[in-house]
Amino acid sequence: MRRTIEWKNNQLYLIDQRQLPRKVKMIICKDYLQVVDSIRDLAVRGAPAIGAAAAFGMVLAANHIQEDKIDSILIQLNKAKKDLLMTRPTAVNLNWALTEIWKVIQESKASKIEGLRKAILKRANEISDQDIKTNYQISENGLPLFKDGDQILTHCNTGSLATVYYGTALGVIRSVYRERKAIQVFVDETRPVLQGARLTAWELKEENIPFTLICDSTAGFLMSKNMIHKVIVGADRIAMNGDTANKIGTYSLSVLSKAHQIPFYVAAPISTIDRSIKDGSFIHIEERKGDEVTKIAGKYIAPEGINVYNPAFDVTPHENITAMITEKGIVYPPFKKNIEKILNRE
Amino acid sequence: MRRTIEWKNNQLYLIDQRQLPRKVKMIICKDYLQVVDSIRDLAVRGAPAIGAAAAFGMVLAANHIQEDKIDSILIQLNKAKKDLLMTRPTAVNLNWALTEIWKVIQESKASKIEGLRKAILKRANEISDQDIKTNYQISENGLPLFKDGDQILTHCNTGSLATVYYGTALGVIRSVYRERKAIQVFVDETRPVLQGARLTAWELKEENIPFTLICDSTAGFLMSKNMIHKVIVGADRIAMNGDTANKIGTYSLSVLSKAHQIPFYVAAPISTIDRSIKDGSFIHIEERKGDEVTKIAGKYIAPEGINVYNPAFDVTPHENITAMITEKGIVYPPFKKNIEKILNRE
Repeated sequence: MRRTIEWKNNQLYLIDQRQLPRKVKMIICKDYLQVVDSIRDLAVRGAPAIGAAAAFGMVLAANHIQEDKIDSILIQLNKAKKDLLMTRPTAVNLNWALTEIWKVIQESKASKIEGLRKAILKRANEISDQDIKTNYQISENGLPLFKDGDQILTHCNTGSLATVYYGTALGVIRSVYRERKAIQVFVDETRPVLQGARLTAWELKEENIPFTLICDSTAGFLMSKNMIHKVIVGADRIAMNGDTANKIGTYSLSVLSKAHQIPFYVAAPISTIDRSIKDGSFIHIEERKGDEVTKIAGKYIAPEGINVYNPAFDVTPHENITAMITEKGIVYPPFKKNIEKILNRE
Repeated sequence: MRRTIEWKNNQLYLIDQRQLPRKVKMIICKDYLQVVDSIRDLAVRGAPAIGAAAAFGMVLAANHIQEDKIDSILIQLNKAKKDLLMTRPTAVNLNWALTEIWKVIQESKASKIEGLRKAILKRANEISDQDIKTNYQISENGLPLFKDGDQILTHCNTGSLATVYYGTALGVIRSVYRERKAIQVFVDETRPVLQGARLTAWELKEENIPFTLICDSTAGFLMSKNMIHKVIVGADRIAMNGDTANKIGTYSLSVLSKAHQIPFYVAAPISTIDRSIKDGSFIHIEERKGDEVTKIAGKYIAPEGINVYNPAFDVTPHENITAMITEKGIVYPPFKKNIEKILNRE
């Protein structure tokens, strides 16, 4: 396992996830616009990872400002913030991280760019370090929910590649395995971008965690044969009532889990909870280009010029979720009450 | 729309469905072993289509026999029958068509190969012609179940390409559209072989029937937004209690349809009903190579050498099926009683 996001020599190093599993290639960002492109084109993806990447994007933006007029500095930083924010609309961590950086800018007493740069870098490093700690804590909190012999289904990639390091839902799976529990992981390939087949399979293979790749549509059939004991997924945005936006296909899995009485867990940091929305109906679902579905490896697999509906996420209603695993502990229903409670806990 | 299967100049013409939608290329079979390969490698697929193709495979086998000793003729024809039968284990139509041909062979009074050839060709042509008539009848019977404004989800390919001509579930959709009903079709791409994206999309585009392609995992989300009013699929084998084997993913769709109170229809000819099995637990589910999942367009999209579970079909329990549309009429629950009844109807 390696770091997905690393700040080194005043540059941001990102694993180019579009190249995986064939090549492990780094993107070296020297300019915040490279970070914008990397997030938009899915070179870096996963809610916590894009939050941290955007924070370092702001560092790069500050590094390129060569003047000391505070008004002009703020205009330039604000433009960078907007550009970074507009890359992906659904994951709340992006907004959360940029808001954190913006607070630092506003609270800074630095009157020159040099001072601001230091303050932004400090906060970006904190966000990045905090993400790693948070992931370890999530995985520790999730451990008691799993036992020897469990066959666990996961969707998309919520591993080290979706975060700065270690992972959320896949972090829990990783820790369960490291606790020497004999588990078998089933990995949804996760069309259209195949984060399961490309990224989760790559991470699990690197650590020799036993797993089997399946097509997304095979999950229900496995459940009907009692071959799935637990489902664990990540989250891109959680409303205050527990409704959860996550990778397209998560909703179907939640309905199937309920029908088969299989526990359905969401693992995510507290920063994924959006205090501003009361339920899932307020979550904006990103729709991406049809080409993601009709083209694979650069070739059309469907007729050209057809209609495609390609939402990147869906919303799982809180009734379908057994529990949420956060760094502050496990949250059980009733979510409305218990999310409020965990947010207020120090 | 063109014929998927055609007998011309003592040869069997098949559309090579692996090349679609990029190229419309014909395979010309002069030998039954070419038919064996075509079925096994999915150049021709779809339960009714492989039944008819296998029947003509027996014609080709007979055409190659150059002697008149009846014992030796039967040994050679029996070998061809076995080779054809072993290509795909789940679709019952294959077994049905070969059994029909074998009856003709056994009942024939011909003492020379020439007479047998004629009898086999006659029956193969009947099976092929009957399939087209059956499909028209299925689509006519299905018409009253659909109305103006319906948004209809379908899975895999059950069109002209899955039959000799016209189609089963997609035949119904075709007829509903031709009745000038304003419908919108949603097409599951149907991983791993992408029969929806490649074949159903191609057929619908050719006829200008309005449709939208989606990933398999998007269907549930669309249902939750009330964007799917009806689901219609085909069948590869139906047990006497109504349990239905069909393309992997069908089971999930049936559970999702039930959870959203959406009618779930199966369209199939009576020949898909397997009188020898009382329920779905007796259906042998074909498991195919992992490469179908891990390789797309000849390139690995997942790490090499990993475990893959790739069942080609799943079984939908009869409780999840609203009605079956056959050429003899619509069958409603209780299926055990009503399937028996329709089988006994002349």
